[in-house]
This record gives sequence, C-alpha cells and structure tokens, in this order.
Amino acid sequence: MAMKKKPVTGMKDILPREMEIRDYAIGLIKDTYKKFGFTSVETPCVEHIENLSSKQGGENEKLIFKIMKRGEKLRLEEATSAADLVDGGLRYDLTVPLSRYYSNNSNDLPSPFKALQMGNVWRADRPQKGRYRQFMQCDIDILGEPTNIAEIELILATSTLLGKLDFSNFTIRINDRRILRAMVDYAGFEPVAAEGESSEGAAIDYDNIFITLDKMDKIGLDGVREELIAAGNSSETVDKYLDLFGKITPDVAGIKFLKDTLGEYLDESITDGLAFIIESVEGAKEAEFKMAFDPTLVRGMSYYTGPIFEISMDEYGGSVGGGGRYDEMIGRFTGNDTPACGFSIGFERIIMLLLERDFKVPGSSEKTAFMIEKNMPKEKMAKILSMAKERRAVGENINIVMMKKNKKFQKDQLTAEGYTEITEFFADKI
Amino acid sequence: MAMKKKPVTGMKDILPREMEIRDYAIGLIKDTYKKFGFTSVETPCVEHIENLSSKQGGENEKLIFKIMKRGEKLRLEEATSAADLVDGGLRYDLTVPLSRYYSNNSNDLPSPFKALQMGNVWRADRPQKGRYRQFMQCDIDILGEPTNIAEIELILATSTLLGKLDFSNFTIRINDRRILRAMVDYAGFEPVAAEGESSEGAAIDYDNIFITLDKMDKIGLDGVREELIAAGNSSETVDKYLDLFGKITPDVAGIKFLKDTLGEYLDESITDGLAFIIESVEGAKEAEFKMAFDPTLVRGMSYYTGPIFEISMDEYGGSVGGGGRYDEMIGRFTGNDTPACGFSIGFERIIMLLLERDFKVPGSSEKTAFMIEKNMPKEKMAKILSMAKERRAVGENINIVMMKKNKKFQKDQLTAEGYTEITEFFADKI
Repeated sequence: MAMKKKPVTGMKDILPREMEIRDYAIGLIKDTYKKFGFTSVETPCVEHIENLSSKQGGENEKLIFKIMKRGEKLRLEEATSAADLVDGGLRYDLTVPLSRYYSNNSNDLPSPFKALQMGNVWRADRPQKGRYRQFMQCDIDILGEPTNIAEIELILATSTLLGKLDFSNFTIRINDRRILRAMVDYAGFEPVAAEGESSEGAAIDYDNIFITLDKMDKIGLDGVREELIAAGNSSETVDKYLDLFGKITPDVAGIKFLKDTLGEYLDESITDGLAFIIESVEGAKEAEFKMAFDPTLVRGMSYYTGPIFEISMDEYGGSVGGGGRYDEMIGRFTGNDTPACGFSIGFERIIMLLLERDFKVPGSSEKTAFMIEKNMPKEKMAKILSMAKERRAVGENINIVMMKKNKKFQKDQLTAEGYTEITEFFADKI
Repeated sequence: MAMKKKPVTGMKDILPREMEIRDYAIGLIKDTYKKFGFTSVETPCVEHIENLSSKQGGENEKLIFKIMKRGEKLRLEEATSAADLVDGGLRYDLTVPLSRYYSNNSNDLPSPFKALQMGNVWRADRPQKGRYRQFMQCDIDILGEPTNIAEIELILATSTLLGKLDFSNFTIRINDRRILRAMVDYAGFEPVAAEGESSEGAAIDYDNIFITLDKMDKIGLDGVREELIAAGNSSETVDKYLDLFGKITPDVAGIKFLKDTLGEYLDESITDGLAFIIESVEGAKEAEFKMAFDPTLVRGMSYYTGPIFEISMDEYGGSVGGGGRYDEMIGRFTGNDTPACGFSIGFERIIMLLLERDFKVPGSSEKTAFMIEKNMPKEKMAKILSMAKERRAVGENINIVMMKKNKKFQKDQLTAEGYTEITEFFADKI
C-alpha cells in the first residue's frame, strides 16, 4: 500500500510555531489552576461505548469514532449491525470520562475534589475551517461541593488564567437552568402532548422553548416570538414571557427584578445564589473582565442542573469557554448524586486568537546557533560541546548545526527561525 | 445500557499523585530539550491504516486499535473482511507519524529539523502488570542531519534530562547495525534458501541471527551457540563469530579491535564514527553515566540503518530508552531518503521508577487551605477571596474549602493531602 503524506481527514499536524504557544499555554494553565487548589487527572482516550452512548452527550454521541473489536471477539459473519463490531470509542468530551473516573476512584480522592483535566477529544464533525476532528479540551471541575464557592472559584481561576494570557475586556455571562424553567412556568406555557397521544401526562416542552430562546442573538426578539407562536404557544403567553427579557438588566438588579416578579415560581436561594456568585467574583477578580447576568443563556447540554456560564470575547464572535453545575451526572455511575460543577475553556480557540495576534511566548526570544565546520577534530569538538554544555546549564538555548556550503543562506535561514546569535567555529581557529 | 465505572481493558485512570510527577517530568522534558534546540511537534493520534501497516512497525502492526468507517462509507453487508470496515487506526508509535509529518511539512521546517514529540500511543497487548494499552511516548529526532553530531546531541540531551530527574550511574550502550552485519559476514555465515526454493538468490539471514544474538543476556554465549548451530549454521562459522564477542572490550578499544579485525568487511568511517560519538559524549556529558560499546545490542526494529543505542539502569532490569539512525524511512513517504536519527525515553518506566522511589516534585510542598464557615456573608467572603487572590498572585497555592461538621477529621484529611497551613475563617471573627 502506498504511504499517505497528509494527516487523516479533519485532523492536523501542528507546526513548531503553534506548538510553542500551545506548550506555553499548557504550562500556564497547569501553573495557574494549581494555585487554586486543582490537581491534574488523566483518563484513557478510549472509553466504553456504553458510557459514551448514555444520552449525556447530546449530538456528540452521533460523532463518535468507534474502535473495532479485535481477535476472537470480532465475528464479522454473525454481525447484524455495526454495534456488534464495536468495543469502545474515542471520548468526545472530558466530562463523561471524569464522571466515570470519580465514581471509580472516589475512595482515593479528597472531598471536595478539584480536578484539572487536559486532553484530546474526538468528534467526527464535517471538516470545516478552524474546526478539527481531534482537538484539545481543558476542563476544571469541583466534585462534591454543593455551595456556590464552587462556581466562584471556577470563575476566578478561569478568568485569572485568561488575564495571564493577555486577554481582557471579556464578559462572563451567567444564568441558572432553574431560572430558565421558572420564567417559562411564570409565563404560563401549556403542556404539549406528543402527536397522536392524549394530553394526559403531557409536559411543558422546556427544551424546545430553550432551543428557540438560544437563537435570540441571531434572530432577535421578534424572531423568537414568531418561532414560539409557530410552535403552537398562545401569543399572550409568549408576550408575557418575552416581556420579561425586555425588563431584565444584565446585572444583579436584573436578578433582583426576577426574584420580585417570579415570586412563588422561583426559590429565593437560587436568585440569591446567583447574585452572590456575581458579587463575590466582581469583588475578588484579578483579570479585567465583567460579569453579566444573561437570562437568554441556555448552554446546550441537558445535564446542567443549576448555574451555567459562558465567556464572550469582543475579538471573537462566539464563546471561548463555558460550564455550569451538573449535580446529577455522577449519580448515573454511582447511584448517589454528587454535586458537581465545571468550567471548560475553548483551548483551540484561545490558541487561534493568540496566533492571530502574533503572540510572543515570554523568554522565547534568545536562541543561539553554533555553526560548526565539517570534520571538526575530536578534541576541538569536545571543546565546542563543553561550551554548549556550560551555556545550556545556565538556561540558554544552544543549537549545534553543521556548517553548509552556502553559509550565507544558512545564516539567513537561522535568523528567520529566530536565532539571535550565530557563532561560527572553524577547526583552525579554535 | 448500564454505565461502567472501570476504565476500558488495559488502560488506566491516572491519580493525582502520579499526575503531579508526570506533569513535572513533562515540563522538565520540554524545558531541557528546548535548550538543545529541539522544537515541539504534534501529530494526530489517528493515523492512516496504510501508514500503520507498512511493515515499519514490526510486531506492533498486529496490535493496532482500528477505527471503524462511518456513515455511508460503512457497508457491513458487502464487507468480506475486517479491513473493508476500517478507516484508520490509533498510532502504535511516534516514529511513523513523525516521518509522515516531515514529508508533509518539510517545506515549512528548518533543515536539519530537531523535533520533540510527546504523546500517547496505543497497542492492544495482552494486559499485564505495569504495561498498559495506552501509554505516553517521548521522542526526540533529528531529521536531515547525516553526520554524527545528530547521535551526539541526542545522547547528550537525553542523558542531561535523566540527570535532572535525579538518575545517575546509568549506561548508554551503543552499537551500529552495519557492525552487526559485518561481523556476520566476517564469520562466513552461509546464505539460507527458503524452504522449497533453490539456493539461487538466497541471502544471509541476518535478522534471524540477530534475533538469536539478542538473547545473549538471557541464554548466555553457550545458549546462543546452540541456537545458531540448531538453525543450520556450521559450528566453525558460529565459533568464529562468537569468538569475536569474547575479545571485544565494551569501550573504544573494543571498537578499535573490530576495525583491525574485520578489515575489508567494514568501512573505517563506521568504527571511527562510533568512537567519535562515544568520546564526544564522554567529554561533554553533564549527567553521571557511562557510554559502553555493546556488540550484542540489536534493537528490534528493522528500520535502523546505522548507530543504535539503549539506556540500561541498575535499579531497573530492562531498557529505559533507546534509539538509533533510520536513514531510509522518510524516503518511503517522499521518495527521497532523508537522514534521520532518534532517541526515545521510556516515559512510563521513568515515571514508575520515580513513583517507586517516592520522588518529591520540587516546590510542591507548600499548600495552604482556607477553611470557611458555612453561610459566610457576602462582604466577609469578599475579604477572604481577596486574601486568597493576593497570596496566589505571589505564587502560593491556596485552596478554599467549606468547613464541615467534623472539623477535626477534615483537618486531618487536609494534612494527609499535604496541606502545610490550614487557616480557619469564622463569620464573627473577620
């Protein structure tokens, strides 16, 4: 078979310039999160197909790279569907593996447990510019902590990290899944019966309402109104619902307004908690950014149970990170619900933004090349290598290269690669 | 489907204590190799099945985790063999992907190119203690450098790294593939015809002789002798061959002896080169270790073309790293041979050794916990968070935890986790 030079479809080779920034960011992430009490964990890239297909992953479950059974376990003739041939899959996120990890190892872990996990995930998305089928995720999670100190620490740690990477003027928007539901209840949306079924046991279709609400920034208030009405909701209900959004300010006063307005539909501890998170973060933040209450923030994954948050950055249209509380997922592994809250930064987007602004890694500017004449005698080579050793020992970057015929071209190339000092060594001059 | 708590067969969850050492080692590896002029690269974990099945990987090719085709490309009914269902595989080493990477990107890379690649690889080995199906590899390679400066720099960089990880008194054994062959030629081994074929076109079966030679440390000189004779070689030839090993000293004098003895069978530049590598490294090494010429060193992979080397460590029986020159592999991708030489350290073995000797990561000893009374009022929480901010900003590790009912137990646990300072905060005392 012929060898293929290109990477597999949708995945990429990472060149040295990007790697330098990635390595720097990874070091800074580990260092910063460690200061907030997080400890690194690692899970296998391959996960049980049962765990990946547990309906926690939403659309991602359709995008799994599946691993084929091997040896005797692979029975091609007897297979009636692809599932019979599958042994596992590449993880599509780090949250499902972390939940499994915690349930498998909780006896050996502190409680609460503050986990940092960085690693590749895989999704067989249609390849498109800037989106790859293998990409790095970077998650911090606090497991076993029911109070809002979890949200506060996650937001402070993440924003401090972004500040250290020279990002400022970003916004962390925050909402609560329970506020989303209470607003729907307050407006009086009717339960929807599935087609052909009786209305008994019918439930309010929160998820579809949220899917429409989530389009607010794209289709505007009028678009959302049209779509909700087209879905069979009364214009009275829809208007009562959307009126709320017009009145809510993106701050603690907006939360107070909701608390007063929604009354019995919403437990006070929820609005108080959200206000507490915002005020605590504002009072103790290190980076330059602002917290904003955003009642239209939905976050796609259905596993969220409480506060949810997302980072918006002016220089980049979409989200560069997000997270929230998911108190019920770990219970699916252990049988006992464990409070859990996480924040994931969009590692690949952050690297892309750093590349675009031509970010210079601190301390990367000093590089020296030793250019050595061919056939350098043993004793003289020893002398040169010892010089390199001494300079490397004090932290300098020394690259030893053999002198080429076209020395000028070679020196120009080294300069282009960032070598600030080039020292030539000739056998008769050393 | 029920959720599974354990990792998939043969792979492991990595707990915080091991992760701390891994993170430290990874940081040190990047930092050390950078000082030698190496730059990081990354290749996708998924590789074309054609590239993985190109006979470069030896036995590893039987251990590939295969990825199943997806969507329309998967035609279960028409499939006559497993190969029809496969789209790619998880890489089993980093050398094949690096060769592909270099052939794909050489226009954008310096020449020579000094690459550092760290990443997971997968092999579906039978699970056994201490060996996992997913493990980290750490390779440095110099591509495009035909002279021995490549071997010298690879050995100096690797040994310097091991020294920084507190390893000493290890040995780097070195040999050359061409010396292995010349010794066989000198001894007069006869070509072997494959069974049922004529002797015309028959070739000396170097590979089988080397496989036997490789067992020297297990079965001894007598065992090797028996096996070679049992394979149909004359005792005269075998004795002439094995006599050589008795006379070779494990140093430059041993190389000199071979140069004088093998004469026409071996180009002088090969023995001179090997002596040059040993003497240059000995003269400029930073770590405490020794170089040894080992004429029995074979290294399994058939792609090696020149010098080969391996690290032996007293505290660990087997090899903790190895490498060599493979000048012909990249040509399989590009059509043009490119000189190449690499050194891989056994990352997992090194981590295992560090864990066994209870290695303490420098600077990891200072950790502070802030224990906060429940329901701390807003303003007082802000004060505590600001104190944490200030101490984190100067590099301290501060973990904020909520006070539990059994405070003594909680404090004992924090102490066991390595917290050296525990500060309690009560609402009425702040």
